[in-house]
Amino acid sequence: MRNVSMLLERLKELITHLYNGDFLLTWERSQPEIEAVLAIAEVLETLYRKGHDTRVFRGGLAISHFRDKSTRTRFSFASAASLLGLDLVDLEESKSQIAHGETVRETANMISFLAEVIGIRHDMFPDEGHEYMGEVARAIEEGYRDGVLPRRAAVINLQCDRDHPTQTLADLKHLEQTLGGLASLRGKKLAITWAYSPSYGKPLSVPQGIITLMTRFGMNVVLAYPEGYELRPETVELARRFAADSGGSLEVVHDMREAFRGADAVYPKSWAPHHILQERTHLLRSGRTRELDQLEKACLEENARHRHWECTEEAMKLTRGGKALYMHCLPADITGVNCAAGEVAASVFDRYRVPLYKQAEHKPYVIAAMILLTRFEDPVAVLAHLARSERSRRAGR
Amino acid sequence: MRNVSMLLERLKELITHLYNGDFLLTWERSQPEIEAVLAIAEVLETLYRKGHDTRVFRGGLAISHFRDKSTRTRFSFASAASLLGLDLVDLEESKSQIAHGETVRETANMISFLAEVIGIRHDMFPDEGHEYMGEVARAIEEGYRDGVLPRRAAVINLQCDRDHPTQTLADLKHLEQTLGGLASLRGKKLAITWAYSPSYGKPLSVPQGIITLMTRFGMNVVLAYPEGYELRPETVELARRFAADSGGSLEVVHDMREAFRGADAVYPKSWAPHHILQERTHLLRSGRTRELDQLEKACLEENARHRHWECTEEAMKLTRGGKALYMHCLPADITGVNCAAGEVAASVFDRYRVPLYKQAEHKPYVIAAMILLTRFEDPVAVLAHLARSERSRRAGR
Amino acid sequence: MRNVSMLLERLKELITHLYNGDFLLTWERSQPEIEAVLAIAEVLETLYRKGHDTRVFRGGLAISHFRDKSTRTRFSFASAASLLGLDLVDLEESKSQIAHGETVRETANMISFLAEVIGIRHDMFPDEGHEYMGEVARAIEEGYRDGVLPRRAAVINLQCDRDHPTQTLADLKHLEQTLGGLASLRGKKLAITWAYSPSYGKPLSVPQGIITLMTRFGMNVVLAYPEGYELRPETVELARRFAADSGGSLEVVHDMREAFRGADAVYPKSWAPHHILQERTHLLRSGRTRELDQLEKACLEENARHRHWECTEEAMKLTRGGKALYMHCLPADITGVNCAAGEVAASVFDRYRVPLYKQAEHKPYVIAAMILLTRFEDPVAVLAHLARSERSRRAGR
Repeated sequence: MRNVSMLLERLKELITHLYNGDFLLTWERSQPEIEAVLAIAEVLETLYRKGHDTRVFRGGLAISHFRDKSTRTRFSFASAASLLGLDLVDLEESKSQIAHGETVRETANMISFLAEVIGIRHDMFPDEGHEYMGEVARAIEEGYRDGVLPRRAAVINLQCDRDHPTQTLADLKHLEQTLGGLASLRGKKLAITWAYSPSYGKPLSVPQGIITLMTRFGMNVVLAYPEGYELRPETVELARRFAADSGGSLEVVHDMREAFRGADAVYPKSWAPHHILQERTHLLRSGRTRELDQLEKACLEENARHRHWECTEEAMKLTRGGKALYMHCLPADITGVNCAAGEVAASVFDRYRVPLYKQAEHKPYVIAAMILLTRFEDPVAVLAHLARSERSRRAGR
Repeated sequence: MRNVSMLLERLKELITHLYNGDFLLTWERSQPEIEAVLAIAEVLETLYRKGHDTRVFRGGLAISHFRDKSTRTRFSFASAASLLGLDLVDLEESKSQIAHGETVRETANMISFLAEVIGIRHDMFPDEGHEYMGEVARAIEEGYRDGVLPRRAAVINLQCDRDHPTQTLADLKHLEQTLGGLASLRGKKLAITWAYSPSYGKPLSVPQGIITLMTRFGMNVVLAYPEGYELRPETVELARRFAADSGGSLEVVHDMREAFRGADAVYPKSWAPHHILQERTHLLRSGRTRELDQLEKACLEENARHRHWECTEEAMKLTRGGKALYMHCLPADITGVNCAAGEVAASVFDRYRVPLYKQAEHKPYVIAAMILLTRFEDPVAVLAHLARSERSRRAGR
Repeated sequence: MRNVSMLLERLKELITHLYNGDFLLTWERSQPEIEAVLAIAEVLETLYRKGHDTRVFRGGLAISHFRDKSTRTRFSFASAASLLGLDLVDLEESKSQIAHGETVRETANMISFLAEVIGIRHDMFPDEGHEYMGEVARAIEEGYRDGVLPRRAAVINLQCDRDHPTQTLADLKHLEQTLGGLASLRGKKLAITWAYSPSYGKPLSVPQGIITLMTRFGMNVVLAYPEGYELRPETVELARRFAADSGGSLEVVHDMREAFRGADAVYPKSWAPHHILQERTHLLRSGRTRELDQLEKACLEENARHRHWECTEEAMKLTRGGKALYMHCLPADITGVNCAAGEVAASVFDRYRVPLYKQAEHKPYVIAAMILLTRFEDPVAVLAHLARSERSRRAGR
């Protein structure tokens, strides 16, 4: 872990425009902004581990709004709130009047009178999650301008249909710390590949987020999946452009082993094809349950044809020196542990268990960094103040 | 927004008896107590907008207990807790042992060892909500006297079958700020009228709370509804008495347009007739689901006969200068937005959207003011201390 | 209530080894550790009642994880968190990915990056609850050692299949305060007896926890139940050993009246036989619903044969001077109040209502004491600091 004052010096050089804004998609943010998130996350983690009181807010709400299940992101958001001194409130739609036909604009204003941040997960339906977050953000912006809202709460994407920035930035932090710094990612090979799972319908935000983020740092990214398991086309286009700009590359192949060959890091993870998610959403929205069942059956059968897309010990041997970093956003489908056959062999997963948990550990600090950048005009000054302060997280010190 | 020191001076003149008590019905509270809530709410809002740390508690529980859905009141209560430094906990009956036959008295004591305030919503059933809150308040009073409870938590009515004080006091604050101060409400005409909705069974607490509160400030209140949509009779009686005392008036008419004529403010809102709510409660309690369905069908048909009770642009033209303040407790049934035909035309609603949101914005501060008045022996001294303090809501300042 | 400085002096003599550990079963903890919990709980209650700010943490998570319904323990845990300055987050499995096959080890790590304490209730199934808590604790220990977790969160048993330490320590505190100190418990007679309830399947943790704890303080414990309503055999064995060590006794009888005779305190409470709970768990896990229904029917019939096991006024007359302390963990099945026939007569319950509520009041402080002992290397110094500090729970003081 680097020195806090060095990180603060580096941060002073990074010009960001996140104040009073949102964090929705990594590709909307500049390179300095991405780097600033990573550096601030590291400062916060260092201070927390050293026992500093890091609460920069004295009250105010951090609102979580999950339209899908979540353990780690839910607790990462709660942890970020606690770290910074915000009070967590969960917006549960089943207990609210949203079902009564309240508009998104109205709800967004009604919950935000004392809000500093709203974290949203809405990842299951293509063309909906990102739209929804944008609608909330515009409503808050408008409410703030109209004088309805005393503060301009930030909307933070906790996973949408397009991107999963709190995850991929934690992943980037993990790569940075494991492979020797951001600069040394240049030229390194990362294989993000589809993997077999006995379930279907897993969202696309992680692979999309990985290819669009890691290509910006000069990595040679190989995206592998069985034919038919395409991602959202625009995100692949974006990744190509980023790779061209950074001197990295994006290659698409249809063979997991080919992708693994010589890789410095591998990220094998199941997902559902984009067109299937669209079809499913359409059937769901029109209440065609029989066709939904048929779709699920067909998809599971199709998945089963690719059961050999598993991250085995044999596959790992193909990577650089047989020692690529194995990555996953968790939870993984582990063969023989929580399913009969899944994304990864138990022995591979187990060997990388501690690094995987450390990968996940970055998330609370990444979220906290996003909050600092969006809610403070001069976050570096705030961090410098925290670093100087002798105030401990414990009483009596 | 008025000057904080002027408000504090005014507050010193207002004698209140809320300390170690509850806030259940506005008509149980004296005029100075009502005014004190408004003034304290304004001080808190001013301090919050100026960035002051307003946390007067250092821990302690704010318990919310919702027996009906809620978005804005739920978040208003959470916001008030955060504003004052209390920790929010929600009492969810489905997860508690209340269903196991625990008495209200016992539950009230068991949850209150560290409680400062309990906010309750229980609005769906006539003759139940207010009774329930009284039972909780008596149990806490008794527990406190017996030495079981170290503190005497306040019970705050977040909507019962009779009144909705946190809403109507926010409404009064809105009238005060829009029409030029409390004194200038005298002689102003307020039309609180039934409006068509495609749903049935909406509670009566808002119209009842409006007529009993605004008549105390010398307003000429007109209550309008189609014959048969009566409120709880005692509340109408109360409002008549208040009007007589204050020099205002209460008039009941059966024509929305007549009510709107020359009005300074209009509050068109749907509700279910009192006798229907009683009948529905009776059927629900005795499990007669077929008769419940029939009742709903009959009521919706009856509602449909009054579809012209809509706050249209044409109706608004009848008000004073065509410019009455349009009010609503939200969410409204807006024609063409969240229903085919509803309480208000989209263009009217939209024109008043910003003022409506500001009306709602008062609620967190009104609740916080109620907490200060019930939990502090000398709330004015506490506010003066906050106003003098340079402590900011943000670290480093 | 004793003097804080006397309690602190006494605490300095008690050597404890709870730092960076868990609190799972009272019989795993030494006598000084048990006494330290009681003394710290008393210090905290005294400071709280005197209005001191007792927040020793500046942020950090207190995670509650309930696998059964709860009111008082849920609020006791929330109260302890608020008392100490921790932020409460509830882990709800239905909203998490645990159902997706995530392992206990993984979940335990994923939620604990900022956790200080995890309170777990898992009491319904023999051989599962305690195992589960141990698994969580081992996962956290391992995560801490591996550098995944910055802190070593404590696991606190909020009721398992074997013990209910937060309840029984509150009970012990109640006995201590009512019977004149811990030393004077020696030789006093405590009757913990089965009592009739119209429900079945109540857990065994309270009677098991009572016999294993109170025998350590030299009490003469009589355990009474109808033949067939056996507890988990090991716990009875343990209690026998403790009694032998302390000079107290454990006697098993099958007649409530015999148990009551001459008792200084009585604790009549329903439970299900250990072998029935095992059978029920087995049927549940194998989805045999018809046999489950038959089991319930048979058990309720068996219960009904022991309807005379009720704590009546007549039974109370058999106790020492007719004035034994009546105890219950609440909620009780009160004849004529929340059931036709139950564990206790309404007049007995009512006479002891205030003491019963005070018995329950100790729980938040007992939990807070466990947190202090597990999370602070020198809890006595922390308490001394709190006691010296003039900082109030309220602003302006």
